[in-house]
Amino acid sequence: MPDTDTIKNVLRMFSYGLFVATSPSAEGPRAATISWVTQASFEPKLIAAAMRKGTGICEAVRESGRFALHVVGAQQPDLAKTFFKVNAATADEIAGYRYGLSEHGVPILGAASAWLECEVVEEANQTGDHTIFIARIVDADSPSEGVQALPLRDTPWHYGG
Amino acid sequence: MPDTDTIKNVLRMFSYGLFVATSPSAEGPRAATISWVTQASFEPKLIAAAMRKGTGICEAVRESGRFALHVVGAQQPDLAKTFFKVNAATADEIAGYRYGLSEHGVPILGAASAWLECEVVEEANQTGDHTIFIARIVDADSPSEGVQALPLRDTPWHYGG
Repeated sequence: MPDTDTIKNVLRMFSYGLFVATSPSAEGPRAATISWVTQASFEPKLIAAAMRKGTGICEAVRESGRFALHVVGAQQPDLAKTFFKVNAATADEIAGYRYGLSEHGVPILGAASAWLECEVVEEANQTGDHTIFIARIVDADSPSEGVQALPLRDTPWHYGG
Repeated sequence: MPDTDTIKNVLRMFSYGLFVATSPSAEGPRAATISWVTQASFEPKLIAAAMRKGTGICEAVRESGRFALHVVGAQQPDLAKTFFKVNAATADEIAGYRYGLSEHGVPILGAASAWLECEVVEEANQTGDHTIFIARIVDADSPSEGVQALPLRDTPWHYGG
Protein backbone atom coordinates (compact mmCIF):
# COMPACT_ATOMS: atom_id res chain seq x y z
CA MET A 1 0.00 0.00 0.00
CA PRO A 2 1.44 3.42 -0.96
CA ASP A 3 1.67 6.15 1.64
CA THR A 4 -1.27 8.47 2.09
CA ASP A 5 0.65 11.49 0.82
CA THR A 6 1.36 9.82 -2.52
CA ILE A 7 -2.31 8.97 -3.05
CA LYS A 8 -3.28 12.50 -2.04
CA ASN A 9 -0.77 14.05 -4.42
CA VAL A 10 -2.06 12.05 -7.37
CA LEU A 11 -5.70 12.78 -6.50
CA ARG A 12 -4.87 16.48 -6.32
CA MET A 13 -3.79 16.32 -9.99
CA PHE A 14 -7.38 15.61 -11.08
CA SER A 15 -9.09 18.45 -12.97
CA TYR A 16 -12.39 19.91 -11.79
CA GLY A 17 -14.70 22.81 -12.35
CA LEU A 18 -16.88 24.50 -9.75
CA PHE A 19 -20.66 24.25 -9.63
CA VAL A 20 -23.34 25.57 -7.33
CA ALA A 21 -25.84 22.76 -6.80
CA THR A 22 -29.34 23.72 -5.67
CA SER A 23 -32.29 21.59 -4.63
CA PRO A 24 -35.71 22.08 -3.08
CA SER A 25 -36.30 20.78 0.45
CA ALA A 26 -39.05 20.92 3.06
CA GLU A 27 -37.05 23.66 4.82
CA GLY A 28 -36.63 25.70 1.66
CA PRO A 29 -34.02 25.80 -1.09
CA ARG A 30 -30.58 24.35 -0.44
CA ALA A 31 -27.44 25.46 -2.26
CA ALA A 32 -23.85 24.22 -2.06
CA THR A 33 -20.68 24.48 -4.12
CA ILE A 34 -19.45 21.14 -5.45
CA SER A 35 -16.72 20.09 -7.85
CA TRP A 36 -16.86 16.30 -8.23
CA VAL A 37 -19.00 16.41 -11.36
CA THR A 38 -18.72 14.72 -14.76
CA GLN A 39 -20.85 13.94 -17.76
CA ALA A 40 -21.86 10.26 -17.57
CA SER A 41 -23.57 9.53 -20.90
CA PHE A 42 -24.03 11.04 -24.36
CA GLU A 43 -27.32 9.27 -25.10
CA PRO A 44 -29.29 9.76 -22.98
CA LYS A 45 -27.56 12.91 -21.71
CA LEU A 46 -26.63 12.13 -18.12
CA ILE A 47 -24.35 13.73 -15.58
CA ALA A 48 -22.91 12.39 -12.33
CA ALA A 49 -22.44 14.62 -9.29
CA ALA A 50 -20.98 13.57 -5.93
CA MET A 51 -22.26 15.20 -2.74
CA ARG A 52 -21.05 14.49 0.77
CA LYS A 53 -23.45 12.21 2.61
CA GLY A 54 -25.32 13.85 5.47
CA THR A 55 -25.04 17.40 4.14
CA GLY A 56 -28.18 19.45 3.56
CA ILE A 57 -27.74 19.48 -0.19
CA CYS A 58 -27.23 15.71 -0.37
CA GLU A 59 -30.31 15.01 1.74
CA ALA A 60 -32.39 17.49 -0.27
CA VAL A 61 -31.43 15.81 -3.56
CA ARG A 62 -32.08 12.36 -2.15
CA GLU A 63 -35.55 13.44 -1.01
CA SER A 64 -36.59 15.55 -4.00
CA GLY A 65 -34.78 13.61 -6.72
CA ARG A 66 -34.11 16.95 -8.39
CA PHE A 67 -31.31 19.49 -8.51
CA ALA A 68 -29.75 22.16 -10.67
CA LEU A 69 -26.05 22.57 -11.42
CA HIS A 70 -24.88 26.14 -12.04
CA VAL A 71 -21.52 26.46 -13.76
CA VAL A 72 -19.32 28.95 -11.90
CA GLY A 73 -17.79 31.30 -14.48
CA ALA A 74 -14.17 32.40 -14.63
CA GLN A 75 -15.14 35.82 -13.22
CA GLN A 76 -17.33 34.39 -10.43
CA PRO A 77 -15.10 33.01 -7.66
CA ASP A 78 -17.30 34.83 -5.12
CA LEU A 79 -20.32 32.81 -6.27
CA ALA A 80 -18.46 29.57 -5.49
CA LYS A 81 -17.10 30.91 -2.20
CA THR A 82 -20.53 31.97 -0.95
CA PHE A 83 -21.87 28.43 -1.17
CA PHE A 84 -18.98 26.69 0.55
CA LYS A 85 -21.03 27.45 3.64
CA VAL A 86 -24.68 26.77 4.40
CA ASN A 87 -26.93 29.77 3.75
CA ALA A 88 -30.57 30.29 4.69
CA ALA A 89 -32.90 31.11 1.81
CA THR A 90 -35.75 33.60 1.63
CA ALA A 91 -38.58 33.34 -0.91
CA ASP A 92 -36.45 34.83 -3.68
CA GLU A 93 -32.80 34.91 -2.63
CA ILE A 94 -30.08 32.82 -0.99
CA ALA A 95 -27.14 34.73 0.49
CA GLY A 96 -27.98 37.70 -1.71
CA TYR A 97 -28.27 35.66 -4.91
CA ARG A 98 -31.73 35.86 -6.47
CA TYR A 99 -33.37 32.70 -7.72
CA GLY A 100 -36.51 31.59 -9.49
CA LEU A 101 -38.16 28.18 -9.39
CA SER A 102 -38.34 25.83 -12.34
CA GLU A 103 -41.64 24.16 -13.14
CA HIS A 104 -40.42 21.29 -10.95
CA GLY A 105 -39.65 23.63 -8.05
CA VAL A 106 -35.88 23.58 -8.47
CA PRO A 107 -34.13 26.87 -7.59
CA ILE A 108 -32.34 28.44 -10.56
CA LEU A 109 -29.87 31.20 -9.67
CA GLY A 110 -30.14 34.35 -11.77
CA ALA A 111 -26.38 34.93 -11.51
CA ALA A 112 -25.51 31.67 -13.26
CA SER A 113 -23.84 32.00 -16.62
CA ALA A 114 -25.01 28.48 -17.47
CA TRP A 115 -27.05 25.84 -15.70
CA LEU A 116 -28.55 22.37 -16.04
CA GLU A 117 -31.68 21.15 -14.30
CA CYS A 118 -31.47 17.46 -13.51
CA GLU A 119 -33.63 14.55 -12.40
CA VAL A 120 -31.96 11.72 -10.51
CA VAL A 121 -32.14 8.32 -12.23
CA GLU A 122 -29.70 6.40 -10.02
CA GLU A 123 -27.86 6.77 -6.70
CA ALA A 124 -24.44 5.16 -6.44
CA ASN A 125 -21.36 4.89 -4.21
CA GLN A 126 -22.67 2.78 -1.34
CA THR A 127 -19.27 2.46 0.34
CA GLY A 128 -18.12 6.05 -0.13
CA ASP A 129 -18.60 9.16 1.98
CA HIS A 130 -20.29 10.94 -0.95
CA THR A 131 -23.44 9.92 -2.81
CA ILE A 132 -23.05 9.92 -6.59
CA PHE A 133 -26.26 11.13 -8.18
CA ILE A 134 -26.60 10.08 -11.80
CA ALA A 135 -29.17 12.34 -13.37
CA ARG A 136 -30.76 13.14 -16.70
CA ILE A 137 -30.93 16.70 -17.94
CA VAL A 138 -34.46 18.07 -18.11
CA ASP A 139 -33.69 21.73 -18.77
CA ALA A 140 -30.67 23.94 -19.47
CA ASP A 141 -29.74 27.49 -20.35
CA SER A 142 -26.58 29.47 -20.95
CA PRO A 143 -27.73 33.10 -20.71
CA SER A 144 -24.21 34.52 -20.90
CA GLU A 145 -22.76 33.45 -24.24
CA GLY A 146 -19.02 32.84 -24.38
CA VAL A 147 -18.40 32.62 -20.64
CA GLN A 148 -15.52 30.35 -19.61
CA ALA A 149 -15.90 28.09 -16.59
CA LEU A 150 -13.64 28.62 -13.58
CA PRO A 151 -11.25 25.70 -13.22
CA LEU A 152 -10.74 24.73 -9.57
CA ARG A 153 -6.98 24.81 -10.15
CA ASP A 154 -7.17 28.55 -10.93
CA THR A 155 -8.50 29.25 -7.43
CA PRO A 156 -6.88 29.13 -3.96
CA TRP A 157 -9.16 26.17 -3.13
CA HIS A 158 -9.00 22.45 -3.61
CA TYR A 159 -11.36 19.58 -3.01
CA GLY A 160 -9.76 16.21 -3.31
CA GLY A 161 -6.88 14.12 -2.07
CA MET B 1 -37.14 20.78 -23.11
CA PRO B 2 -34.18 22.97 -24.17
CA ASP B 3 -32.62 22.53 -27.57
CA THR B 4 -29.79 20.05 -27.95
CA ASP B 5 -27.25 22.76 -28.70
CA THR B 6 -27.91 24.52 -25.40
CA ILE B 7 -27.41 21.31 -23.44
CA LYS B 8 -24.27 20.55 -25.42
CA ASN B 9 -22.85 24.03 -24.82
CA VAL B 10 -23.33 23.78 -21.06
CA LEU B 11 -21.87 20.25 -20.94
CA ARG B 12 -18.85 21.50 -22.89
CA MET B 13 -18.15 23.94 -20.02
CA PHE B 14 -17.34 21.06 -17.65
CA SER B 15 -13.68 20.73 -16.66
CA TYR B 16 -11.77 17.51 -17.22
CA GLY B 17 -8.28 16.10 -17.19
CA LEU B 18 -6.96 13.32 -19.40
CA PHE B 19 -6.09 9.83 -18.19
CA VAL B 20 -4.84 6.69 -19.85
CA ALA B 21 -6.79 3.80 -18.35
CA THR B 22 -5.24 0.33 -18.58
CA SER B 23 -6.62 -3.05 -17.66
CA PRO B 24 -5.64 -6.70 -18.09
CA SER B 25 -7.77 -8.88 -20.39
CA ALA B 26 -7.66 -12.39 -21.81
CA GLU B 27 -6.35 -10.90 -25.08
CA GLY B 28 -3.64 -8.91 -23.33
CA PRO B 29 -3.43 -5.43 -21.86
CA ARG B 30 -5.98 -2.82 -22.92
CA ALA B 31 -5.34 0.91 -22.83
CA ALA B 32 -7.59 3.87 -23.64
CA THR B 33 -7.64 7.60 -22.98
CA ILE B 34 -10.58 8.75 -20.89
CA SER B 35 -11.58 12.02 -19.26
CA TRP B 36 -14.82 11.48 -17.34
CA VAL B 37 -13.08 10.85 -14.02
CA THR B 38 -13.60 12.24 -10.52
CA GLN B 39 -12.71 11.42 -6.96
CA ALA B 40 -15.78 9.89 -5.28
CA SER B 41 -14.86 9.60 -1.59
CA PHE B 42 -12.26 10.84 0.89
CA GLU B 43 -12.63 7.91 3.32
CA PRO B 44 -12.29 5.32 1.91
CA LYS B 45 -10.37 6.86 -1.00
CA LEU B 46 -12.51 6.11 -4.05
CA ILE B 47 -12.55 7.36 -7.61
CA ALA B 48 -15.24 7.12 -10.30
CA ALA B 49 -14.34 6.63 -13.96
CA ALA B 50 -16.79 6.41 -16.86
CA MET B 51 -15.96 4.21 -19.85
CA ARG B 52 -18.09 3.75 -22.96
CA LYS B 53 -20.01 0.49 -22.82
CA GLY B 54 -18.88 -2.12 -25.33
CA THR B 55 -15.35 -0.78 -25.74
CA GLY B 56 -12.39 -3.05 -25.10
CA ILE B 57 -11.29 -1.12 -22.04
CA CYS B 58 -14.77 -1.15 -20.50
CA GLU B 59 -15.17 -4.90 -21.03
CA ALA B 60 -11.67 -5.56 -19.67
CA VAL B 61 -12.41 -3.61 -16.48
CA ARG B 62 -15.77 -5.32 -16.08
CA GLU B 63 -14.13 -8.73 -16.37
CA SER B 64 -10.97 -8.12 -14.34
CA GLY B 65 -12.38 -5.67 -11.80
CA ARG B 66 -9.04 -3.88 -11.96
CA PHE B 67 -7.55 -0.94 -13.79
CA ALA B 68 -4.93 1.78 -13.55
CA LEU B 69 -5.41 5.48 -14.25
CA HIS B 70 -2.36 7.32 -15.55
CA VAL B 71 -2.52 11.09 -15.29
CA VAL B 72 -1.55 12.71 -18.60
CA GLY B 73 0.94 15.49 -17.84
CA ALA B 74 0.91 18.98 -19.33
CA GLN B 75 3.82 18.04 -21.63
CA GLN B 76 2.30 14.72 -22.74
CA PRO B 77 -0.49 15.38 -25.24
CA ASP B 78 0.98 12.63 -27.46
CA LEU B 79 0.43 10.09 -24.69
CA ALA B 80 -3.27 10.94 -24.63
CA LYS B 81 -3.54 11.02 -28.42
CA THR B 82 -1.97 7.58 -28.82
CA PHE B 83 -4.67 5.93 -26.75
CA PHE B 84 -7.64 7.57 -28.43
CA LYS B 85 -7.36 4.57 -30.74
CA VAL B 86 -7.12 0.87 -29.94
CA ASN B 87 -3.54 -0.44 -29.89
CA ALA B 88 -2.29 -4.01 -29.77
CA ALA B 89 0.08 -4.80 -26.88
CA THR B 90 3.22 -6.89 -26.85
CA ALA B 91 4.63 -8.45 -23.67
CA ASP B 92 6.23 -5.18 -22.60
CA GLU B 93 4.87 -2.32 -24.68
CA ILE B 94 1.67 -0.86 -26.09
CA ALA B 95 2.03 1.47 -29.07
CA GLY B 96 5.66 2.06 -28.13
CA TYR B 97 4.93 2.80 -24.47
CA ARG B 98 6.65 0.36 -22.13
CA TYR B 99 4.70 -1.08 -19.23
CA GLY B 100 5.21 -3.36 -16.26
CA LEU B 101 2.58 -5.40 -14.43
CA SER B 102 1.48 -4.69 -10.88
CA GLU B 103 1.22 -7.60 -8.48
CA HIS B 104 -2.43 -7.84 -9.54
CA GLY B 105 -1.50 -7.99 -13.23
CA VAL B 106 -2.52 -4.42 -14.05
CA PRO B 107 -0.36 -2.72 -16.72
CA ILE B 108 1.48 0.36 -15.38
CA LEU B 109 2.94 2.63 -18.07
CA GLY B 110 6.51 3.73 -17.48
CA ALA B 111 5.83 7.08 -19.15
CA ALA B 112 3.20 8.10 -16.60
CA SER B 113 4.06 11.04 -14.38
CA ALA B 114 1.51 9.79 -11.85
CA TRP B 115 -0.82 6.81 -11.62
CA LEU B 116 -3.38 5.10 -9.42
CA GLU B 117 -4.10 1.38 -9.41
CA CYS B 118 -7.74 0.66 -8.64
CA GLU B 119 -10.06 -2.17 -7.71
CA VAL B 120 -13.72 -1.87 -8.69
CA VAL B 121 -16.15 -1.85 -5.78
CA GLU B 122 -19.31 -0.84 -7.66
CA GLU B 123 -20.60 -0.49 -11.23
CA ALA B 124 -23.16 2.22 -11.88
CA ASN B 125 -25.03 4.04 -14.66
CA GLN B 126 -27.46 1.37 -15.83
CA THR B 127 -29.30 3.68 -18.22
CA GLY B 128 -26.25 5.47 -19.66
CA ASP B 129 -23.99 4.63 -22.59
CA HIS B 130 -20.96 4.60 -20.26
CA THR B 131 -20.34 2.37 -17.24
CA ILE B 132 -19.24 4.26 -14.14
CA PHE B 133 -16.69 2.22 -12.25
CA ILE B 134 -16.37 3.22 -8.63
CA ALA B 135 -13.07 1.90 -7.38
CA ARG B 136 -10.81 1.96 -4.37
CA ILE B 137 -7.16 2.86 -4.71
CA VAL B 138 -4.82 -0.04 -4.01
CA ASP B 139 -1.55 1.49 -5.20
CA ALA B 140 -0.22 4.81 -6.47
CA ASP B 141 2.95 6.56 -7.46
CA SER B 142 4.00 9.94 -8.77
CA PRO B 143 7.52 9.37 -10.10
CA SER B 144 7.81 12.83 -11.64
CA GLU B 145 7.50 15.33 -8.82
CA GLY B 146 5.88 18.66 -9.63
CA VAL B 147 4.29 17.64 -12.93
CA GLN B 148 1.07 19.47 -13.81
CA ALA B 149 -1.83 17.57 -15.33
CA LEU B 150 -2.97 18.44 -18.85
CA PRO B 151 -6.45 20.01 -18.72
CA LEU B 152 -8.64 18.82 -21.60
CA ARG B 153 -9.49 22.44 -22.37
CA ASP B 154 -5.82 23.16 -23.15
CA THR B 155 -5.92 20.64 -26.01
CA PRO B 156 -7.63 20.64 -29.43
CA TRP B 157 -9.87 17.80 -28.21
CA HIS B 158 -13.12 17.60 -26.32
CA TYR B 159 -15.18 14.79 -24.89
CA GLY B 160 -18.59 15.84 -23.76
CA GLY B 161 -21.71 17.59 -24.92
